[in-house]
Amino acid sequence: MTARQLHFNAFLMEAGHHEAAWRLPESNVDADFDLQHWVRLAKLAEDAKFDSLFLADGPALQGSGEFRPPGQLEPLTLLTALVAATSRIGLIATVSTTYNSPYNLARRLASVDHVSGGRAGWNIVTSATQREADNFGLDFTLGHGARYERAAEFLDVALKLWDSWEDEARVGDKAAGRFADPERIHPIRHRGQYFRVEGALNVRRPPQGYPLLVQAGSSDDGKQFAAAYAEAIFTAHQTIERAQDFYADIKDRARRIGRDPGGIKVLPGIVPVIGSTEAEAQQLAQQLDDLRVPEYGLLQLSTILEVPADSLALDESLPRSVVNRPTVEGFQSRADLIVELATREDLTVRQVLSKLGGGRGHHTVAGTPEQIADTITTWFENGAADGFNVMGPALPSGLEAFIEHVLPILRSRGLFREDYTGTTLREHYGLEKPANQFHVRELTRV
Amino acid sequence: MTARQLHFNAFLMEAGHHEAAWRLPESNVDADFDLQHWVRLAKLAEDAKFDSLFLADGPALQGSGEFRPPGQLEPLTLLTALVAATSRIGLIATVSTTYNSPYNLARRLASVDHVSGGRAGWNIVTSATQREADNFGLDFTLGHGARYERAAEFLDVALKLWDSWEDEARVGDKAAGRFADPERIHPIRHRGQYFRVEGALNVRRPPQGYPLLVQAGSSDDGKQFAAAYAEAIFTAHQTIERAQDFYADIKDRARRIGRDPGGIKVLPGIVPVIGSTEAEAQQLAQQLDDLRVPEYGLLQLSTILEVPADSLALDESLPRSVVNRPTVEGFQSRADLIVELATREDLTVRQVLSKLGGGRGHHTVAGTPEQIADTITTWFENGAADGFNVMGPALPSGLEAFIEHVLPILRSRGLFREDYTGTTLREHYGLEKPANQFHVRELTRV
Ligand SMILES: Cc1cc2nc3c(=O)[nH]c(=O)nc-3n(C[C@H](O)[C@H](O)[C@H](O)COP(=O)(O)O)c2cc1C
Ligand SMILES: Cc1cc2nc3c(=O)[nH]c(=O)nc-3n(C[C@H](O)[C@H](O)[C@H](O)COP(=O)(O)O)c2cc1C
Repeated sequence: MTARQLHFNAFLMEAGHHEAAWRLPESNVDADFDLQHWVRLAKLAEDAKFDSLFLADGPALQGSGEFRPPGQLEPLTLLTALVAATSRIGLIATVSTTYNSPYNLARRLASVDHVSGGRAGWNIVTSATQREADNFGLDFTLGHGARYERAAEFLDVALKLWDSWEDEARVGDKAAGRFADPERIHPIRHRGQYFRVEGALNVRRPPQGYPLLVQAGSSDDGKQFAAAYAEAIFTAHQTIERAQDFYADIKDRARRIGRDPGGIKVLPGIVPVIGSTEAEAQQLAQQLDDLRVPEYGLLQLSTILEVPADSLALDESLPRSVVNRPTVEGFQSRADLIVELATREDLTVRQVLSKLGGGRGHHTVAGTPEQIADTITTWFENGAADGFNVMGPALPSGLEAFIEHVLPILRSRGLFREDYTGTTLREHYGLEKPANQFHVRELTRV
Repeated sequence: MTARQLHFNAFLMEAGHHEAAWRLPESNVDADFDLQHWVRLAKLAEDAKFDSLFLADGPALQGSGEFRPPGQLEPLTLLTALVAATSRIGLIATVSTTYNSPYNLARRLASVDHVSGGRAGWNIVTSATQREADNFGLDFTLGHGARYERAAEFLDVALKLWDSWEDEARVGDKAAGRFADPERIHPIRHRGQYFRVEGALNVRRPPQGYPLLVQAGSSDDGKQFAAAYAEAIFTAHQTIERAQDFYADIKDRARRIGRDPGGIKVLPGIVPVIGSTEAEAQQLAQQLDDLRVPEYGLLQLSTILEVPADSLALDESLPRSVVNRPTVEGFQSRADLIVELATREDLTVRQVLSKLGGGRGHHTVAGTPEQIADTITTWFENGAADGFNVMGPALPSGLEAFIEHVLPILRSRGLFREDYTGTTLREHYGLEKPANQFHVRELTRV
């Protein structure tokens, strides 16, 4: 038996996760819309046997565009365009349950799973911002709880649609002129609070049964939703203690509702800033930090904290009114993390921005390959992670350095695969193809 | 100067347009979900220098699945998966304005245009059937007029979103840390009857300005919509006279609202059944007709005519109540065409089904390559068509025969290109990249 294995997801973002990455001399200014950039990243990650690659998203412009690329290709479209350039790596796209309809989205995801031979994954998000709401004719955003309520019903509908064709439904009897068995194609007749959907889906059951379900919300609602539906969880933590708490909490919630906790892989984010010496790593971190435009970070921070930008002073601590507020309606867990970080380390706003610039709250580790491999191993072996969301501060260089220098160390420790053993995304994560809820069992002759 | 050139669009459909094509010995029963089948068809059409390929669609199961594949991959997803296998041919997908939101769809289409280097086209449909409505929680379908009203507002929003980034918006000044010029990224602030959308789009302006706009509704509402927005029109006619009327009507409507009639290409459907002799062509037609399951055709016909299937008797004429009815709410023009055909040729329902089986109302021409080329030439030179929607009765064989035997004749007559002269879909159709409605003209120094 092989030891428990790490899972790696390559979280891709145009020129890199650091907000100033596009300004590096080597960066491609048009990375966001250059298919060849994404093909190159996808092949890099696949050659290194990553489980999957992942694209974040939101249906709105992010910021004014002045300081950083404010948009990107629609992620399911981009991942579909990468299908032909790859053959094994999983393809995970973020799509919102708040601004889509279950029939269309279940169909698109099933289609991507078909054309990719079982490599589709869905990062399920509920879309926290007013800017997104404004593009869909809603005067106000649905509240936090209502968004997750809608998301849960959305998933129930989608799961029924994906199961609506049994695997055996296609008969294909040319002689009899019988293409399919209508008894094995099930209308779903869903009548709920948010949706009414008749079904069946007009796409056969996807190769994986359904796409890998990924979730990234860390609020209480988010964790409950994840425990019920998610098969992989992306999360952001600054310390191993926080990550351990989160890990235990998720596995415990799963156990309590009767799911196998091993069926949910927890992947915290890590932003590796890699140097051959610690000093070299610090230098790279500094180079990126120097390129930040503070105005940009201030706008971002004010959005997450839901306060006006001019209420934050660069050289002061976070205002008491922010620190003492119980919660926000949008990015709850990220807001909490930032407040905690600022308070724990007694940081000015400027210092907070510098910390966040690289990873927006994810754990940044600047160091040698050995140091980074040690952090990963420690988190993995001490109940903080089943793997990691690898977030190159600049791309492709950050991913290349991780692959070239960190992965060999982890491989030598027997913690990461030398090659793929399966062909589907679910197989890479060690998960089984789910049973079909509509499957009509044949009567056994007695 | 070269003479006016034909335009050809390859209308693809799993095993072919004939309803029984999947039953032919050579047909791939899994064509609908086999990416390699579509790759092969796309390459065939591109090697032959077709302007574009096209996929029809509707967000619902079609029929019970018993007699024919009742669904298919979501078409924009499938076309995106074909981007890497092709480099010049246009990619036209059908998507509904009734069951999508303008922000998401404008973004997806812009993304496909980006990843394909300017090859995206959109067949704009309003979705006529109750089965589609039932998958989106609507108790009743919007009426015919309201659907087109929504479609027009949808297009107004989409056009503004596609223009919301000026071509010059991306500055990319690394030294100054200035990525884009926010003055050239325009919120659209749309407040209409069906939609409220703030904008801007979070995708840069697509290479073609916007995807080629295609329309295929032939009712009065449909034609008025087409005259206002469409750049290419798919249409179905049984006789050259009807096609000429339609052609003149469309060009006239365009002229009356101030558009250049040359800016709208009219492409009737043609189902070529090709034999080296007339007898051989008839034999192929007969082989397909013999494979039809009459129950299936009856169900289809009853849907289009909006009458119960049991009100149609196979060996009688269409009931008087159907013939004398003024119109239907769904597929108006197709229902009218069928009633006219049945009346003109005094056909029984069985005979109507046989005529429709191959092309669902499109013009089927069974004959030698020379005869088919003659029909095409006559329609093209006598004000009935700017090109054709080529609908192989069986695929790939129907497309192969057309390419191998009919295209050379048309080329020898100087009517069809030997090679592409442009790179974008709009260039293939001889259309210009549209101006940007938000473009801020520079002040000229005097
Ligand atoms: C790695 C990671 C990636 C995320 N990607 C997205 C994203 O692409 N779109 C989005 O709206 N939210 C994204 N989120 C945020 C959450 O999914 C969630 O929407 C947000 O945190 C609000 O939910 P919560 O209050 O439950 O945390 C991401 C979070 C993490 C940790
Ligand atoms: C070649 C061709 C292709 C069509 N493809 C579709 C399609 O994919 N989906 C659809 O709903 N309607 C399709 N239609 C039908 C029309 O677009 C339209 O929705 C229908 O005829 C009702 O509109 P009308 O009453 O204006 O004709 C097609 C029509 C033609 C001629």
